[in-house]
Amino acid sequence: MPSQFDPPSGTRDFLAADVERREHAFAVIKSVFARYGFEPLQTPAFERLDLLLGKYGEDEKLIFKILRRGEHGASGDADLALRYDMTVPLARVMAAYGSQLPTPYKRYAMGPVWRGERPGRDRYREFYQCDLDTLGSASPLADAEVLAAHHDALVGLGLTDFTVQLNSRRVLAGLLAAFSIPPELGPGVLISVDKLDKDGPGEVAAELTQRRGITAEQAADLVATLTAPDAAEHVRVALTKTDEGIAGLDEVDAVLALLTGQIPADRIAFTPRMARGLSYYTGPIWEFVAAGVAGSLGAGGRYDHLIAQLGGPDVPGTGTSIGVERILTLLPGADTAPSARLDVAVTMLGQDLAGRSFALAAAGRAAGLRASVYLGSSGKLRTQLKWANDSGARWCVIYGEQEQQADVVTVRDMRSGEQARVPTGDLAGYLGAAARADG
Amino acid sequence: MPSQFDPPSGTRDFLAADVERREHAFAVIKSVFARYGFEPLQTPAFERLDLLLGKYGEDEKLIFKILRRGEHGASGDADLALRYDMTVPLARVMAAYGSQLPTPYKRYAMGPVWRGERPGRDRYREFYQCDLDTLGSASPLADAEVLAAHHDALVGLGLTDFTVQLNSRRVLAGLLAAFSIPPELGPGVLISVDKLDKDGPGEVAAELTQRRGITAEQAADLVATLTAPDAAEHVRVALTKTDEGIAGLDEVDAVLALLTGQIPADRIAFTPRMARGLSYYTGPIWEFVAAGVAGSLGAGGRYDHLIAQLGGPDVPGTGTSIGVERILTLLPGADTAPSARLDVAVTMLGQDLAGRSFALAAAGRAAGLRASVYLGSSGKLRTQLKWANDSGARWCVIYGEQEQQADVVTVRDMRSGEQARVPTGDLAGYLGAAARADG
Repeated sequence: MPSQFDPPSGTRDFLAADVERREHAFAVIKSVFARYGFEPLQTPAFERLDLLLGKYGEDEKLIFKILRRGEHGASGDADLALRYDMTVPLARVMAAYGSQLPTPYKRYAMGPVWRGERPGRDRYREFYQCDLDTLGSASPLADAEVLAAHHDALVGLGLTDFTVQLNSRRVLAGLLAAFSIPPELGPGVLISVDKLDKDGPGEVAAELTQRRGITAEQAADLVATLTAPDAAEHVRVALTKTDEGIAGLDEVDAVLALLTGQIPADRIAFTPRMARGLSYYTGPIWEFVAAGVAGSLGAGGRYDHLIAQLGGPDVPGTGTSIGVERILTLLPGADTAPSARLDVAVTMLGQDLAGRSFALAAAGRAAGLRASVYLGSSGKLRTQLKWANDSGARWCVIYGEQEQQADVVTVRDMRSGEQARVPTGDLAGYLGAAARADG
Repeated sequence: MPSQFDPPSGTRDFLAADVERREHAFAVIKSVFARYGFEPLQTPAFERLDLLLGKYGEDEKLIFKILRRGEHGASGDADLALRYDMTVPLARVMAAYGSQLPTPYKRYAMGPVWRGERPGRDRYREFYQCDLDTLGSASPLADAEVLAAHHDALVGLGLTDFTVQLNSRRVLAGLLAAFSIPPELGPGVLISVDKLDKDGPGEVAAELTQRRGITAEQAADLVATLTAPDAAEHVRVALTKTDEGIAGLDEVDAVLALLTGQIPADRIAFTPRMARGLSYYTGPIWEFVAAGVAGSLGAGGRYDHLIAQLGGPDVPGTGTSIGVERILTLLPGADTAPSARLDVAVTMLGQDLAGRSFALAAAGRAAGLRASVYLGSSGKLRTQLKWANDSGARWCVIYGEQEQQADVVTVRDMRSGEQARVPTGDLAGYLGAAARADG
């Protein structure tokens, strides 16, 4: 049972160790993006409601709407809504600042989005999205660049056991034509095909016949071709029948060629069965998958008219979305203890030594270390040493009457238990040298 | 007139240069907090509405309430609300995780809060708060520590032209007693006194008499004492008349003594007229003010029962809130141009050289630099050099047919205009050395 003090359903509190893990991962990803020349963009947590309405189909019910303020609130009307993704705000920003932005506009956005989904394991109502997009370039170089940056971000985080499935919407269009599937059935067929990895060939073939309106023979042929061990080669042959198929293959091959040497050859493959459910893609599409991990580590593709559909200018676009929340669950240290809060813990023995103890902590900070004085009410050294230990402190500075008389401090190495007497004025230097010796 | 593409009223889009300025400042502040042994806490953007109701008095109308989802939304009922500050979530976290948290719990929270205020110059509906608090210590060391960390954060950001006004709620209580002002009139009197810097003595004296129910003689005496050039000395004498006044003075002097050597003596002063409007303070209070800057650079104080009043456990607490949004307007570079997006710009001359150009950008990144290939459609070197220049690139790598035949690249120093021919395989090494030579 949730307690009244839990965060709202589907949201999380992040205590220190979690914040540190998350921020470290975000910093790694940002540094990769910056190295590719992408710049950050931050938009507000909420947008005007009318900007979001009509953009998400039946998922519109998942939008968190914000009541009007003051007396208007009584009407029950909403005028704002929490952002549901980073793409609609991007389209608005392109419309608002287009001429001030570089061409192409290469930006990343990393931050929370909110969706009123039913909370579940690894499914949250507040979660981070991490999007990388290039607007204003129709070149396969732009596709390859966002894909390579996505790849490098995962590698930067220490992940290597994953593969990139590469395909193209034009390959899929050519494939449907090659199997004589009418274009109007295409979107439904692709939704079913996209489930091959999850549901298996039999179930997908049945769905194709029963729900998507193609013949049993077409369905069997299509599924057999896509799931054959050498599916890519079979599909390559089939695609030569149509201009769209040839164009799609060229697109895939151009991206593969650009990534040669950038992504290990065994980590990326033309994967014709990978269809991506979303209808707005117009060119290359990709998905990062890890063995044994449900769902993806992110995905993306080219979406040449999406920004216009969302209310922005009609610019070509390509982008990738890194599944940061899932990735965070895969990183080592996901359940390790919090790191140390302090390097230097300073004891407080006797109220009249308070001022001096406080200054000793400052000496620790002057040495570039994290240092604090004991703030509790116990005057006992033993209690204070326990506090120093619980704080993870590497050194404990002890300053009592004996030390005061000799104008020294006792520095206790909390790892070895050894103690040294250090002239008070030398404390910052002593601690700095000790920290350097630690490496 | 706002355009339909502007962000919602009272909110801002942050393009690259703004994000970089803000994140740099936040990183400086966080590193100071960490050096004092404070740990981060992140709570959700929204809380259950009932947690926030009844906590903000007449400001409750400024809370952004979130409609229930799905069919429940039609009722116009709200069940969640965007966080209005960082303190109510802190009280909830203390109640939820108290035993898992260190004692004392020293945490900072930095992130957006939302208030439906009337937007104005430097007043936003979405703005960052930056709070530093220590829960579980009644010691003046804890007060002095958060105050010193606040001070060091401002200095770390490059601000030095500010002062700390230090006072205590117990000093104010003793002062009211010394002037025979009935305790029940105290809160109103302090609200008026707190306006002395803004409204001046005459107006405050009039308000004290007309609205706060004290006699004209009491008001004149009080205002004269508080605004005298040697107000602190006058007040010290007046305070010796009551136990509360003596205790308050001891509190102020304890904090002043601890900060000796930590904060320059001319940057902190006992300031009896500084009252802080908020009634929840119970001990030392302080405000950071900068000459010529309206409003404060942050403020704080001890609030020993606030966490219990907000639904948490009854622990002593002290904290400070850094006015990050105002501080950001004071930092140098508030309106400088965006920094360079790239170190290395790679030209793309001829479609069949695309793969090679892409790999050359990777060589730049391998040298630890920000590098990208030209993604536009022009095949002209001149256009591409303009792009390199607009990107702020330090070097432009030119790779055309001539270079291809000789297996070299031309590296153009965008500052000097000088060009060098570099064997392709040596590019990463060459750029790395050039970057080190730049410093």
